[in-house]
Amino acid sequence: MNTIGKILTLTTFGESHGPAMGGILDGMPAGVDIDLDALQRFVDRRRTGQTAGSSSRDEKDRVDVLSGIWQGRTLGTPIGFLVRNTDARSGDYDDIARCYRPNHADFTWEKKYGLRDPRGGGRASARETVARVVAGGIAIQALNKLGITIQASAVQVGNSQCRDAKSCVSQLEDELKRAMAEGDTLGGIIECTVKGVPVGLGEPVFGKLQAQLAAAMMSIPSVHGFEYGDGFAMAAKRGCEVMDLFEKREDGSIGTVTNHSGGIQGGISNGEDIVMRIAFKPVPTLMREVPTVDRDGNPVTLQPRGRHDVCVVLRAVPIVEAMAALVILDNYLIRKTNEL
Amino acid sequence: MNTIGKILTLTTFGESHGPAMGGILDGMPAGVDIDLDALQRFVDRRRTGQTAGSSSRDEKDRVDVLSGIWQGRTLGTPIGFLVRNTDARSGDYDDIARCYRPNHADFTWEKKYGLRDPRGGGRASARETVARVVAGGIAIQALNKLGITIQASAVQVGNSQCRDAKSCVSQLEDELKRAMAEGDTLGGIIECTVKGVPVGLGEPVFGKLQAQLAAAMMSIPSVHGFEYGDGFAMAAKRGCEVMDLFEKREDGSIGTVTNHSGGIQGGISNGEDIVMRIAFKPVPTLMREVPTVDRDGNPVTLQPRGRHDVCVVLRAVPIVEAMAALVILDNYLIRKTNEL
Amino acid sequence: MNTIGKILTLTTFGESHGPAMGGILDGMPAGVDIDLDALQRFVDRRRTGQTAGSSSRDEKDRVDVLSGIWQGRTLGTPIGFLVRNTDARSGDYDDIARCYRPNHADFTWEKKYGLRDPRGGGRASARETVARVVAGGIAIQALNKLGITIQASAVQVGNSQCRDAKSCVSQLEDELKRAMAEGDTLGGIIECTVKGVPVGLGEPVFGKLQAQLAAAMMSIPSVHGFEYGDGFAMAAKRGCEVMDLFEKREDGSIGTVTNHSGGIQGGISNGEDIVMRIAFKPVPTLMREVPTVDRDGNPVTLQPRGRHDVCVVLRAVPIVEAMAALVILDNYLIRKTNEL
Amino acid sequence: MNTIGKILTLTTFGESHGPAMGGILDGMPAGVDIDLDALQRFVDRRRTGQTAGSSSRDEKDRVDVLSGIWQGRTLGTPIGFLVRNTDARSGDYDDIARCYRPNHADFTWEKKYGLRDPRGGGRASARETVARVVAGGIAIQALNKLGITIQASAVQVGNSQCRDAKSCVSQLEDELKRAMAEGDTLGGIIECTVKGVPVGLGEPVFGKLQAQLAAAMMSIPSVHGFEYGDGFAMAAKRGCEVMDLFEKREDGSIGTVTNHSGGIQGGISNGEDIVMRIAFKPVPTLMREVPTVDRDGNPVTLQPRGRHDVCVVLRAVPIVEAMAALVILDNYLIRKTNEL
Repeated sequence: MNTIGKILTLTTFGESHGPAMGGILDGMPAGVDIDLDALQRFVDRRRTGQTAGSSSRDEKDRVDVLSGIWQGRTLGTPIGFLVRNTDARSGDYDDIARCYRPNHADFTWEKKYGLRDPRGGGRASARETVARVVAGGIAIQALNKLGITIQASAVQVGNSQCRDAKSCVSQLEDELKRAMAEGDTLGGIIECTVKGVPVGLGEPVFGKLQAQLAAAMMSIPSVHGFEYGDGFAMAAKRGCEVMDLFEKREDGSIGTVTNHSGGIQGGISNGEDIVMRIAFKPVPTLMREVPTVDRDGNPVTLQPRGRHDVCVVLRAVPIVEAMAALVILDNYLIRKTNEL
Repeated sequence: MNTIGKILTLTTFGESHGPAMGGILDGMPAGVDIDLDALQRFVDRRRTGQTAGSSSRDEKDRVDVLSGIWQGRTLGTPIGFLVRNTDARSGDYDDIARCYRPNHADFTWEKKYGLRDPRGGGRASARETVARVVAGGIAIQALNKLGITIQASAVQVGNSQCRDAKSCVSQLEDELKRAMAEGDTLGGIIECTVKGVPVGLGEPVFGKLQAQLAAAMMSIPSVHGFEYGDGFAMAAKRGCEVMDLFEKREDGSIGTVTNHSGGIQGGISNGEDIVMRIAFKPVPTLMREVPTVDRDGNPVTLQPRGRHDVCVVLRAVPIVEAMAALVILDNYLIRKTNEL
Repeated sequence: MNTIGKILTLTTFGESHGPAMGGILDGMPAGVDIDLDALQRFVDRRRTGQTAGSSSRDEKDRVDVLSGIWQGRTLGTPIGFLVRNTDARSGDYDDIARCYRPNHADFTWEKKYGLRDPRGGGRASARETVARVVAGGIAIQALNKLGITIQASAVQVGNSQCRDAKSCVSQLEDELKRAMAEGDTLGGIIECTVKGVPVGLGEPVFGKLQAQLAAAMMSIPSVHGFEYGDGFAMAAKRGCEVMDLFEKREDGSIGTVTNHSGGIQGGISNGEDIVMRIAFKPVPTLMREVPTVDRDGNPVTLQPRGRHDVCVVLRAVPIVEAMAALVILDNYLIRKTNEL
Repeated sequence: MNTIGKILTLTTFGESHGPAMGGILDGMPAGVDIDLDALQRFVDRRRTGQTAGSSSRDEKDRVDVLSGIWQGRTLGTPIGFLVRNTDARSGDYDDIARCYRPNHADFTWEKKYGLRDPRGGGRASARETVARVVAGGIAIQALNKLGITIQASAVQVGNSQCRDAKSCVSQLEDELKRAMAEGDTLGGIIECTVKGVPVGLGEPVFGKLQAQLAAAMMSIPSVHGFEYGDGFAMAAKRGCEVMDLFEKREDGSIGTVTNHSGGIQGGISNGEDIVMRIAFKPVPTLMREVPTVDRDGNPVTLQPRGRHDVCVVLRAVPIVEAMAALVILDNYLIRKTNEL
């Protein structure tokens, strides 16, 4: 249940305030050059303290690769890795061990397992995503060698939508500062584009590429929606408006003139850019007093505590890229088995 | 790849114009009473000819259960079943064997496998969903015994949104008739609600309940978007606006006052209604001439042929319910393994 | 649980006296020529009535392929197939519904599921193996195109061991006739050799080729032991006695002089013949009175009834070949994913 | 491929001379008390230097649990753990990077992946089993709480078979010393008994309990054979000789008088002791000169080097117990899903 993928699989572990987060990336093809410095830089993109409104918890997030890569190349063996938790302050969480924070996993987790590690949200903390980013960063390096690139960016934060990439971050940060001033939080939308995907990735019926991508993205904490191509807007359009007509290109290949389908038709990549959008809910921890209940259902008031993001969307960009990379590389490998 | 689920698994087979569609539902608990007449009625809800604009292909869709149910009860063994294809007219499809229909799977399928069965779209046809409905119908009967019910309905067809369930179907049918008159097609949105789900279903991290539901729904042909709870709208809201505060109920249990979270928190059901919305693209086959290319990229014009739906949304309602049932029952069974 | 394989998967269904046995073979590469007549002949090798002491139940075992093969070639889609049960005589089994036959699955099955289909042993009957042989027969045709061949044969029946293949069957049949005359039954050993396997199949650690082959063979009803290469005899040998020294062959390739390792080293095929031996217990149904207990533990005497084999070993030869084929082809496909 | 299990899964990583071996045990039920000191003692049973003829490599094998256990109890989250490699001497292995040791994985591994980590055999080293023992040790503690116990012991080393448990180890050590004096190595047989298993574990058809146990045991390095109950000897017996007749016991339960079936019938545990035997080949590294070839097939002579066991059987006893525990606990959990 802590595993994703079929041939390329990622299994992760770790509680927010335990000694370390980590994972095993299995099924990576052998002989792939991996640049560990570039990997660290990719993981650093997810760190706190880089944008307005990010948590003040300062984790170095040093990636420690324990196996599977030797002399700069993958061995074909599982890649085990760790990221130590160094700035955990568990004292912050004593009171939440006794009550349930609204819109958090406290209540559901405790009912499911009968107990929970309340320190920093335990495994329900978004800190688990650091292991996704490590593994995804490795997958991205492999994809790049195949000419496949992945780029995600925040296109909406709260009510503020980005017109162009340049002005986007500063515009979104203004929105963040306003929310922060009020002790409130924001959600947003990330758009992710995968370029250079060969035709033929994805498995018909239950393994459609969009189904795998949706599962990967919806597994990111706080995500509430997924769409690809024209997405929800397609529901209101006529068939004639969203028809991606074919054309013969100069190199003799066949492509489509438009891309309402978002690069996937019949569950299989068609060679156009894969485009998807992922919606995040506002961070559930407000910097205000919040009324809630304790285990017995008695009313209590939560004081603002801990160190939390005002909005996860900017930090989630590399997480989205990582999840896309894991799915695309897995399907690239599965694709090899379609012929004898 | 034609399998979904972990403990309760469905594997399906069948081409649109082959002798039969079918599947194997494995992992069903033993000793569950199954009413085969009720199952047939559930499958009939997906049949053509029941609403305006549905295909004129008239399949009886008789469910033939071959194993796993004996004397009206499940044996704990795999349930094999067939639905014969009886009204296939393969002559209709001769020309599309030589060219690629826009927004269909013809191009991607042929590039992936090197060959394809063009008759009725082969396995890429939405006819494959009949096997999902059979299996889901069995799962629904099991869930009902546990007090869990599932109800989906179309809430939008084209630009027309439903105000209330009563007026909805006739209102949507008006929209369908307009599109049909123009040889055009429509998409739409289905909302699905699952009631009576116990707290604790879903697996944290990659197996979050919303991730599994998204994968199941996104695997339905024509689906382009999935959201749960407040979904995409949540991205534009403040944290304080979507907070589902806890309350103690009269029976002593703890629940939430609102349900912005759509019944799932931290990837795990919280006991409230699970609510999700699924967006369908317009049917890709227009009843008009459509320009496209043949295998060599040369322009050709497709004449309107075959028997197709103007909009799949009304027929897709039981498909959505079926997929929801398979996911929920699977997680209900997995839930049993959380304690020793 | 009724599924085997990773990329190439077989899922089966069917009770001995239900309407049909069947299965879905998923993951078969596309574009492979399949000779359905040759497939039927392979399945016929498992039928009754071909050797002394085989059951008098006379099933025609006509293979009905429902999908996945079109115009004589695989489509890359799941291959659904049926074999109807036509000669079931369920009246024979009325009394065993009330008591447990020794060395059968009656007791364990009923305790596991709370109920069982007693007719012909239900799904616990070796009749389920017909679906394995159908799927394996398809896999064998694919392997043959790759230059990989599989041959199994009975090397021991009861106390009688075969010196050479020629005299073997008649010699074993003599042993069978003696046991039959006494209302008794026999076990035996099958040896299976796979030739032409390329180097590199099998996955280290838990997916070792011998582990996958062992699981496949031990899943055949009545099998009690598996060994490969020198097997159990290796335990008593010195290291220097079983060393498969390397040599350079005339074609420049590297091979081993001897094959104590049975074609697998470190869990991975080394290009030599894969050789394994599978031990079958004697058939549990004697043609004698047998004392046993009913559901309440009260003593009862079972009268000899039904139609049963005296020894399954001769009929099991194609089953062993089928299981070997499924494992080898699956690993051939997985092997393709070892490189980017 | 580095994962075993269905609900309870173990995924491992690590090269013999890399920084650490480790794994993730996922699916452990929540709320189980785990004694980490007892776990360390169990892992210590696999260490070197405890019996004659074991490798002089001296690893402390300190188990470092990184997640999933908090305040002495399992959380229901994945248990990540490490065992550091501290006594690796990679200089010892420089020459074997250029040639293939007979009966090792050097040749197959290099052909499969195109490269290999030659240091200490890389991931093909039996050192990977330390992760199995850690995970299995946790599973054993859970099983013990259910009244299920597992005990394995060496019953044969080389040609020497044990009469009784008491004299066994010293007797076997004599055999070891003789082989060691000659620079030779030995194989052997381990017998493993699982007591207290409830009726109903194991899944019919491909998931038979013996199939899962065989796969688990055959995945241990050096294992060449698996049998359960009367095993290979059953092949030569008459049906009447191996019939496990039922009886009613004093507590009213039904059991069998004998146990030729080894505690499993129809693939499902019957409540009797599960008994199986596992055959190990002699250690492939002799303390003698051994002729072999280099990558180009040219003859070379390997000088005795590195630190190796003369026989793995004594050290493998806890490995066998660990693998048995993982399979049995996994099936115990799956068993819970047989009823609604």
